[in-house]
Amino acid sequence: MQALDVIAKKRDGGELSKEEIEFFVQRYTDDRIPDYQAAAWLMALFLEGMTDRETRDLTMAMAHSGDMLDLSDLVRSTESGRKLLVVDKHSTGGVGDKVSLVLAPLIAACGVPVAKMTGRGLGFTGGTVDKLESIPGYRTDLGVDAFKAQVEQIGVVLTGQTADLAPADQKLYALRDVTATVESIPLIVSSIMSKKLAAGADAIVLDVKIGKGAFMKTMEDAEALAHGLVRLGKQADRKVVALISDMNQPLGRAVGNALEVREAIDTLRGGGPQDFRDHVLTVAAEILRLSGRVAERDAALTLALDTLSSGAAWQKFRDLVEAQGGDVSAVDNPDELPQASMVKPIEAPRSGYVRSIEAAEIGLAVVGLGGGREEKGQPIDHSVGVVVHHKVGDLIQKGTPLFTIHANDEKKLEEARDRVLAAHRFSDQPVQPLPLFYQRITE
Amino acid sequence: MQALDVIAKKRDGGELSKEEIEFFVQRYTDDRIPDYQAAAWLMALFLEGMTDRETRDLTMAMAHSGDMLDLSDLVRSTESGRKLLVVDKHSTGGVGDKVSLVLAPLIAACGVPVAKMTGRGLGFTGGTVDKLESIPGYRTDLGVDAFKAQVEQIGVVLTGQTADLAPADQKLYALRDVTATVESIPLIVSSIMSKKLAAGADAIVLDVKIGKGAFMKTMEDAEALAHGLVRLGKQADRKVVALISDMNQPLGRAVGNALEVREAIDTLRGGGPQDFRDHVLTVAAEILRLSGRVAERDAALTLALDTLSSGAAWQKFRDLVEAQGGDVSAVDNPDELPQASMVKPIEAPRSGYVRSIEAAEIGLAVVGLGGGREEKGQPIDHSVGVVVHHKVGDLIQKGTPLFTIHANDEKKLEEARDRVLAAHRFSDQPVQPLPLFYQRITE
Repeated sequence: MQALDVIAKKRDGGELSKEEIEFFVQRYTDDRIPDYQAAAWLMALFLEGMTDRETRDLTMAMAHSGDMLDLSDLVRSTESGRKLLVVDKHSTGGVGDKVSLVLAPLIAACGVPVAKMTGRGLGFTGGTVDKLESIPGYRTDLGVDAFKAQVEQIGVVLTGQTADLAPADQKLYALRDVTATVESIPLIVSSIMSKKLAAGADAIVLDVKIGKGAFMKTMEDAEALAHGLVRLGKQADRKVVALISDMNQPLGRAVGNALEVREAIDTLRGGGPQDFRDHVLTVAAEILRLSGRVAERDAALTLALDTLSSGAAWQKFRDLVEAQGGDVSAVDNPDELPQASMVKPIEAPRSGYVRSIEAAEIGLAVVGLGGGREEKGQPIDHSVGVVVHHKVGDLIQKGTPLFTIHANDEKKLEEARDRVLAAHRFSDQPVQPLPLFYQRITE
Repeated sequence: MQALDVIAKKRDGGELSKEEIEFFVQRYTDDRIPDYQAAAWLMALFLEGMTDRETRDLTMAMAHSGDMLDLSDLVRSTESGRKLLVVDKHSTGGVGDKVSLVLAPLIAACGVPVAKMTGRGLGFTGGTVDKLESIPGYRTDLGVDAFKAQVEQIGVVLTGQTADLAPADQKLYALRDVTATVESIPLIVSSIMSKKLAAGADAIVLDVKIGKGAFMKTMEDAEALAHGLVRLGKQADRKVVALISDMNQPLGRAVGNALEVREAIDTLRGGGPQDFRDHVLTVAAEILRLSGRVAERDAALTLALDTLSSGAAWQKFRDLVEAQGGDVSAVDNPDELPQASMVKPIEAPRSGYVRSIEAAEIGLAVVGLGGGREEKGQPIDHSVGVVVHHKVGDLIQKGTPLFTIHANDEKKLEEARDRVLAAHRFSDQPVQPLPLFYQRITE
């Protein structure tokens, strides 16, 4: 078999066999197929598409390109003898998406083991690893053994993806990023699911974001992605649900690493923005049902709500921070988290209803402040960010605070101010608030 | 402008602007765009296609990526004061295609200056540079100054392409070769024409081969390529004609470098195979008219025929060999050309009409003997090859010589014999001979 023949077959619209896909993925991972051949192959896959069978084979080939974690010995039983599956959750990424910070300890506090590897931010979207690293000392580079041991010990782990997990996806994703081959549903499905399958959880909830601050801009694309993810998970014998959620405006109020950690802490302690809190509880209820912990949606929501209100989730978060080497006093007293030297509230330039808050623009404003990265590997400033004080539909009065900029540089502060101001649009007529979720996809 | 945006625009079916195409070509030539981005771009161009305008801009950008030869001071005038344009000819490549070896001196002997750069063989197709290098001492690496000086001096030059000519095409072609992006009509058109435009001739005859031994397998593709080449040449103010000629069986009888030089010498001296001689005279007549030397086709054919019969073309060939440092005694006495140690005639296995002779298989048999290359840069053995003794339609008798293998290795000889035998198919019923030409395309 030759790489050239596999490229030509897909170029001509052919369906690649399992062997051809495995050949290409293995050879590329082993540096025996050069980047330029993989780039031509990816563009052919992008433009000619992939069947469900090809997508599955690509996913499996990438999942098996490195370690496949076996978490079966972490599956627990309830008092009634029911199995509690190990759960994982994936978000396709957005602005202000700090869900995992609250969700993981909340679920673990409900007795369901959570084993989650997570990523860094790129472009306008933030990454959970970056947010966690706002907490002094928090380790995001756990190895496979420590990963498993911590789930065993405290029922929850939240760390960066190890290099041994789906290395083929890591290499192909980096190449897609620089060859304009990112926005392909089958390639996105296989990238997400190869990592999730390798990470070993039995039950996976997928949070597919749609809107101006998400990769999927249309409902059609979001549905195609959600269905693709769910089908693939089921074919791999996982329990899977996908939720399609809104990402037209930031989720919650804080955008920026330490600011988001602080908002997550507020939420774990019983406060936090309403939309963020409701979003977390909705996802939590799905996970609790999927894992086998609770059968009915009402009971699942009640359990999640009680666990949040009782402080059990907050206590589990403290355990998590401590287990991964983080400074617990910094989360107990969030003023010890990194803080920007300039904190400037910006007033609303007019009265009216908030018509839209362009999420991607807020994300890019934070990148401009130094809180995100334009290219992989760039260092980031955890202290900076933007806190929006309103949501779409709110009626506001001219001169009241519209948002607050946290910056360490006067010029960057001004640029961010202009950008975030321009990202807010107003209307004289009442505006409907945006929904949190659009659809629940189970097949 | 960013390479990524240009890739994405073509990926999404957009029409690239002249500036975008020039940006990509210049940056890639300067090593400021990496191979993997160019590979993704080429696959997007291949699959999404290019408009005539894009093809022209790509051609011009590649032509202008290096030296643009100005041959205007070589344009001569006839006694009647008419201009004689400098001519060039390009064949899309085939098996046994030694046309340039006879055509160039023939045209020059008719008084029309011939300035031709030519290439090496790859895969089943031979290359004129390799054939010329069968002649001891013949230099194929003339610089631009020597190239022009020789046309001035003896009216003809036949050498390899200089590195300074269309370097963008050289780099992109090498990448297409390893990324399955060769067989795209707009990319082939721009590759051929960028070199031809940079080489400076005013009148260009394009010999587009069609058949099992050519890159174009269908008449539809050959026509599309021929029309594309002619349109582009005219847009660049060149006089252009394309001929679509047969390449289902080898042209002439000899396939292999020194063997083809010998057949060319036979033809220049008044002998040679009928099909090859007729092919050369037909192309010559086109060139004589295109250059302004003769207005009518009949007169052009008569002039070409007379110049071949009189020995003037042969004399010009000797001048050419001498001017480029070749050993004239070796062409005067072709037994001094490289000769294989084993020369083995193979008998026809049955009686019947020759139904087909798979040209690509003959070409690959010669590669197997060491007379061609599978990868760029491989050294080749000029002495080996195959001489077929019959053409499609011939009635042959079992036991008479069907072809002769020239080899330097017993095992390779046997492999070539089996391959060439299998490439000959027979019929009990009379078979129509193949035509030499199918179409003449002028717009």
